[in-house]
Amino acid sequence: MSANRSIREDAAGDWSQGRARVVIEAVSPNVDGGLFPAKRVVGDRVTVEADVFADGHDAVSAVVLYRRSDADNWSEAAMKPLVNDRWSAQFAVEALGTYSFTVCGWIDRFVTWQRGMRKRVAAGQDVAVEQAIGAELVCEAAAAAQGFDADRLHELERRLREGSVGAAVLAVAEDEELSRLMGRYAPRRFATTYAPELTIWVDRPKAGFSAWYEMFPRSAAAERRHGTLKDVEARLPYGASMGFDVLYLPPIHPIGRSYRKGPNNATEAAPDDPGSPWGIGSEEGGHTAIHPQLGTMADFRDLRAAAERAGVELAMDIAFQASPDHPWVGGHREWFRKRPDGTIQYAENPPKKYQDIYPLDFECDAWQSLWQALKDVFLFWINEGVRIFRVDNPHTKPFRFWQWVIDELRQKYPETIFLAEAFTRPRVMERLAKIGFTQSYTYFAWRDTKYELTTYLNQLTRSELREYFRPNLWPNTPDILPESLQVGGRPAFMARLVLAATLSGNYGIYGPPFEHGWSAPREPGSEEYLHSEKYEIHHHDLHRADSLHDFIARVNQIRKSTPSIAHAGTLEFHSIDNEQLICYSRVAPDLTDVLLAVVNLDPWHVQSGWVDFPIDRLELPSNRPYQMHDLLSDARYLWHGNRNYVELDPQVSPAHLFRLRRRARSERDFEYYL
Amino acid sequence: MSANRSIREDAAGDWSQGRARVVIEAVSPNVDGGLFPAKRVVGDRVTVEADVFADGHDAVSAVVLYRRSDADNWSEAAMKPLVNDRWSAQFAVEALGTYSFTVCGWIDRFVTWQRGMRKRVAAGQDVAVEQAIGAELVCEAAAAAQGFDADRLHELERRLREGSVGAAVLAVAEDEELSRLMGRYAPRRFATTYAPELTIWVDRPKAGFSAWYEMFPRSAAAERRHGTLKDVEARLPYGASMGFDVLYLPPIHPIGRSYRKGPNNATEAAPDDPGSPWGIGSEEGGHTAIHPQLGTMADFRDLRAAAERAGVELAMDIAFQASPDHPWVGGHREWFRKRPDGTIQYAENPPKKYQDIYPLDFECDAWQSLWQALKDVFLFWINEGVRIFRVDNPHTKPFRFWQWVIDELRQKYPETIFLAEAFTRPRVMERLAKIGFTQSYTYFAWRDTKYELTTYLNQLTRSELREYFRPNLWPNTPDILPESLQVGGRPAFMARLVLAATLSGNYGIYGPPFEHGWSAPREPGSEEYLHSEKYEIHHHDLHRADSLHDFIARVNQIRKSTPSIAHAGTLEFHSIDNEQLICYSRVAPDLTDVLLAVVNLDPWHVQSGWVDFPIDRLELPSNRPYQMHDLLSDARYLWHGNRNYVELDPQVSPAHLFRLRRRARSERDFEYYL
Repeated sequence: MSANRSIREDAAGDWSQGRARVVIEAVSPNVDGGLFPAKRVVGDRVTVEADVFADGHDAVSAVVLYRRSDADNWSEAAMKPLVNDRWSAQFAVEALGTYSFTVCGWIDRFVTWQRGMRKRVAAGQDVAVEQAIGAELVCEAAAAAQGFDADRLHELERRLREGSVGAAVLAVAEDEELSRLMGRYAPRRFATTYAPELTIWVDRPKAGFSAWYEMFPRSAAAERRHGTLKDVEARLPYGASMGFDVLYLPPIHPIGRSYRKGPNNATEAAPDDPGSPWGIGSEEGGHTAIHPQLGTMADFRDLRAAAERAGVELAMDIAFQASPDHPWVGGHREWFRKRPDGTIQYAENPPKKYQDIYPLDFECDAWQSLWQALKDVFLFWINEGVRIFRVDNPHTKPFRFWQWVIDELRQKYPETIFLAEAFTRPRVMERLAKIGFTQSYTYFAWRDTKYELTTYLNQLTRSELREYFRPNLWPNTPDILPESLQVGGRPAFMARLVLAATLSGNYGIYGPPFEHGWSAPREPGSEEYLHSEKYEIHHHDLHRADSLHDFIARVNQIRKSTPSIAHAGTLEFHSIDNEQLICYSRVAPDLTDVLLAVVNLDPWHVQSGWVDFPIDRLELPSNRPYQMHDLLSDARYLWHGNRNYVELDPQVSPAHLFRLRRRARSERDFEYYL
Repeated sequence: MSANRSIREDAAGDWSQGRARVVIEAVSPNVDGGLFPAKRVVGDRVTVEADVFADGHDAVSAVVLYRRSDADNWSEAAMKPLVNDRWSAQFAVEALGTYSFTVCGWIDRFVTWQRGMRKRVAAGQDVAVEQAIGAELVCEAAAAAQGFDADRLHELERRLREGSVGAAVLAVAEDEELSRLMGRYAPRRFATTYAPELTIWVDRPKAGFSAWYEMFPRSAAAERRHGTLKDVEARLPYGASMGFDVLYLPPIHPIGRSYRKGPNNATEAAPDDPGSPWGIGSEEGGHTAIHPQLGTMADFRDLRAAAERAGVELAMDIAFQASPDHPWVGGHREWFRKRPDGTIQYAENPPKKYQDIYPLDFECDAWQSLWQALKDVFLFWINEGVRIFRVDNPHTKPFRFWQWVIDELRQKYPETIFLAEAFTRPRVMERLAKIGFTQSYTYFAWRDTKYELTTYLNQLTRSELREYFRPNLWPNTPDILPESLQVGGRPAFMARLVLAATLSGNYGIYGPPFEHGWSAPREPGSEEYLHSEKYEIHHHDLHRADSLHDFIARVNQIRKSTPSIAHAGTLEFHSIDNEQLICYSRVAPDLTDVLLAVVNLDPWHVQSGWVDFPIDRLELPSNRPYQMHDLLSDARYLWHGNRNYVELDPQVSPAHLFRLRRRARSERDFEYYL
C-alpha cells in the first residue's frame, strides 16, 4: 500500500484535525529531532520505534511509512506493540542515498470491536447489536475494496449479520481473511502522522566495515631514493596480503618551500629535506597536482586501477590549507585573511606560529567562490576515480561548509566515504558526524584500561551516537604514537591491534611503523615519532623477521569471517574478575555467529580470570559443554555454563578470539563440535 | 539590549548563512524539541543551558534571548561556559503566561584577540601588527556606539595604537571598561540563533505549592441529613485550621436517576439512595447546575467568598460525561454515539457495562460544537470565580481537546490551575502534562517501599519530566484506599501523610476518612472503601479523639516554613542502612533552608539506622557538631559529621522532619544553636 507524499501534520496545534486522537512521540532513529539523518548501509534492516497511544481504551494501529526520498509513494510496514505504548517495525534499505520515514497511527475500530466481541462472547452476553456494528464496519471497508476482495468482504459481512450464536459470530469476527482484508481496506479515519519526516542516509557497506592501511608513498621505495606512486603500486600485494581494503595516502601534492619544516619538525629545513606532505602547494601546483617526485597523473591512474584489481581502494587525504607557495596565495588572495601590514595571516595558536601554513579564511567576502573551489578539489579526484577521502582537521573549518560540500558531492556520488580526522572536543566531533562525515577518528588511541575502553565504547555504541557516529579506531597514526605502544613492546602492538580490529567495524593502522613496532618518541612525553615520516623519507624492509604482518593478516581474516563486527549494536562487554583482562562479544542477531574476545591489557604479565558469558541468551543448553575455538591460536577449549577460566600470556598471545562452534542450528537444539 | 523579534534561522541548511560558524544544540529546558512549554511559576529563575561551539579555536560568546511571548523586544542574558562546550544563563519570569527564549552565539573576535594578546605578550613577542588588529576592532565598535561611549571607545582605540611596550598594550586590551563596551557595541558578525523558539509557561505559585483537601459536600452536615454547601461553608475553619489551601469538591451537579448505583456500587439503587456525584445530569440540569439538595447558586457564591476569606481556594470537579438523564442527551444527541438499534452507546469496558454513564463522542461530526460546549462549562465556573479544576479521567477524552480548551481558557485566565486525574499508563499521563495540565495525580498511592519511592520520585524530579509534570501526591482518594492504609493503622497514615506532604510541592488528602483513619475495604483485595461516600452519605464527628487533625496541621505548618518543598529539583535521597527507613532532603539553592526527612516505612516495629548526609556540600565545618531540630516532635539532636544515628518508633512518630539550625550565614563561617 502507499500513501500520498504530502503527508504532514502538526503534532501539536492544528485544531482542524480535532478528531485525530492518536499521539505519536519519541520516534527513533532520530538525530536531533530529524535535523540530521541516521546512518545505515545498504542491506541493513532499519528498526523504527515510536510511542503510539490514544485516549481511552480503543485499539490503536500504526504503520511506518518509508520511501527513498526521491520516490513518490510511501511503502508501509505494520508496527507491533512492545511494552508501555512503544511500537516497532522494520524496513530494509536497499539503495544508496536518503530514505525518509515517519509513523502513522489511528484508532482501529475493527480491532476494538474484535477485542470487545471476544470478551462479550466469553461472558455469554447477547451480541446482536454488536453483530450489526461489526457488519457495518465490514460493509464500509467493502465499499473501499474492489473485485474479489470486495466480494469477499460482502460475503463476510453477510455471515456476520447472520450468525445466530455468539461462538459462530466470533468465529467470523476472528477470521484471518477478514482481519487481513480489514487491515487493508478499513478507512483509517482521523489518522495522525508524525510531523517531522525523519531520514536515513544509506551508505555502501564499506562505510561500516573497512580496514585501512596508511603509508607514505615517498617512503615506498625498496632502495634509498624518493619513493613514487609506482613504488606504491608495487607494494599493493603487501597491503592486500595483510587483508586491508583501504589504502590511505597522505597528501601527494607539491610541497611548499617557504618556512618548510625539517626533520623532527625543525623550523629550519636543509635544502634537500622533503618537507611535510601537509604543506600543500608550490609553483608546481596545488590540491589537484601531483608532487613531481612521486610521479605523474598517469602513474596515479595506474595505481588506482591496480589497487582496484588488488581489492584495495585508494583513499585520498584532503587538507584544506595552503603553503605560502600555493597557487591560490597568488591567484586568490581574497580567500586569505590580510593582516594590517599587508601580509597574509599564517596559522597560529598563540604564542605558537605556523608560518609554513596559511589557513583559508572561511569568513572572507568571497566565501562562496572559496566553497566552490574546494568542492572542485573533491570533484577533481572523484573524476580520477577516488571515492574515499580522509579529511584533515575538519574541525578547523566551518561545519556549514562540510555539510554543504558533502551534501553536494553525495547527490551525484552517494558512494563517497568521508573520514573526519578531528581529534577534538566531543560535541565538535559529534557535530561533524551529524552533518555528514561517514566515519570518524576517535579517542581510542588514548583509551588503555578496561574502564576507559568499556566506558568509551559503550558511549559510542549504546547512546544516540550509534545512529550517526561511526568510529574508526587507529592504534597509531603519523601524529600519534601513544604511550601504550612506546612502552608495551610487541604484546601491546598485538593487543591494540586486536582491540581496534574487533571493537569496531572500521579500523586502521599506519604502517610499516606499526607492523615493525616503531616505539621511539621524538622526546620523552611526546606522542610524535622520532624521525617521523612526516618530515623524512624512510626505507622499510618489509621482510623483517619480527614483522607483525602475519598476525595482522590473521586478525583481518577473522574480521572478515565475523559479519557482526560491522554492527555497533552487537558489541557487549562481559564481566571478568581481573582488571587487566577485557572481554566482549559480537553476536549476530540470529545467533548464528558468536565471537568472544578476551584481551590481556597487561603487556608484561600472565593474567587469568573467570569470564561471565551468559550463554542462556545464546540458546545454548546450560547442561552441556560447548566448544570455544580460538581463531588466533587455532586452539580449542571445552567450556561449561556461564563462567569459564581464561589465562593469557602476553609473550605467547595477548588475546583470544573465540568463535563458538555449533554444527547446525535447529529449533533450540544444537550439536557441537566436541 | 534587545534584538529584533524576527530572529529565526535554520540550524541546518540555510547556505546563505554560510559564514555563521557557531553551532547551538541541546538547548534546555526543552520539552519535545519545543513542541510544548516547560513549566515554571512566577518568581522562578529559569536556567537555560546549551551546547555552543564553533570550528577552530576562536572565542565564542553567547546570550539567551528571552521575552514574554507577546512582547516585541528580546531581553538578553549573557551565557557563561560550564564544561564540555556547555553554556548557561538565567533569567527571571515575573508574569503569568508564556515566555519565549532562544540562544544566540557568535565568534567573538575581540575576545579571541584579547586571549591571543595575553599569550603573545607573555611570550615576549612583538605585537605591533596585533595592536593594529585590535585597534581596528575597537574602531568598528566605536562606529556602532554613540555619544560618551563612542568617545570612550575612540580614546581606547588611540591608546591601543599608541602603546609602545607589550605590557602597556595588554593593560589597555584587558581594560574592564573596554571589555564592557566591546561586549555591547562590537558587531555580532555571522551570529547563529537557535532555530526553534522554546517556551516557558508561567503559572502562579500555587501551581507548584498547594495542599488539597477533598470532601463530599453531602456528607458535610453535622446532623443526619443531606449536607449542603452551607454545611461546607461551616466546615471551612476546620479545613483551614489543618493548613490546607485548596478545598476540592466532587461534582455538585444534579445526579441522574437511570441506572443509578446503590451503596458499594450496587447496580440497583433504592429510591432514596443518593447516587454517585459523577453520574452527572438530571432534569434539574447538567454541568452548570447545582444539585438542589446541596443548595443554590447563591449558596455556591457564598461558599466561594467565604473560602477566599478563610485563605482556602475552591476547586471544582470537571467530569465530562453524562447520565442518561442529562439535558444534553435529549438536547444534543449529536454528541453521543448511536448504536444500530437506535439507543445511545453507554460506557463499557467489555464485558462490563456502565449503563449509568454516557460518554461524549469526541469523534462525532458535531465535535466542534461539543468542544465549544465543554469550554463553556469551564467558562461558567470561571465566571463564578473558580480558578482550580480537578479534571476527572482526562485520559478518556482526546488530548487535542484538552490542549485546545486549556489554551483557550488560559489566554484570558492564565491563573487557572488544572489537575489531571489520570491513573493510567506513563506515556498518557506525561502527554496530559505536556499539553497543559498544571498538576497531575501520580502512582504515589502504590509506591510503598524505599526502592519504589526512590525510583519513582527520582524519575519525576530528575528526568525531563521535572520540566512539565508537576506531581500531586495523594495517600488516599475516594477511589483509592491503598493496602498500606488498610493494614498499617495510624502509623501508616502518619507516614504516608509526611511522605506526600514533603516529597512534592503539591499533595492532598481525602477527608475526613483520612484523618479518621478509615481502613476498611469494600472486600478483601479491593481498594474501594467499604460504604464509600461515592454512593452513600456519611456523618463525621470532627472532634474524634483519634483524629489526625493536629498532626496534619503540624505537617502543613512545616511545609509552609520550607520553601524548597515547592521546587522539585531540590529533592535528594540519602543513603540509610535500613530498608525500612527512607531519608531525603530539601535544600534551598542558597543553602539557607535545609530540611532532612527520615520516615519509618514499617508501621509495626521500631527501626534504626545510620544516615549518610553529606554536610560538606552545605558548607558546614566538618569538625563541629550541628543541631538537628525535629519539627514534628520539637526534639533537638546534636549531630556530628556525615553519618548519624536515627531511631523511629512508629507508635510514637513514624517520622523525623529535621531542620538544620544555623544562627546566621556569613561567608563560610556559621554559628549554630547548640
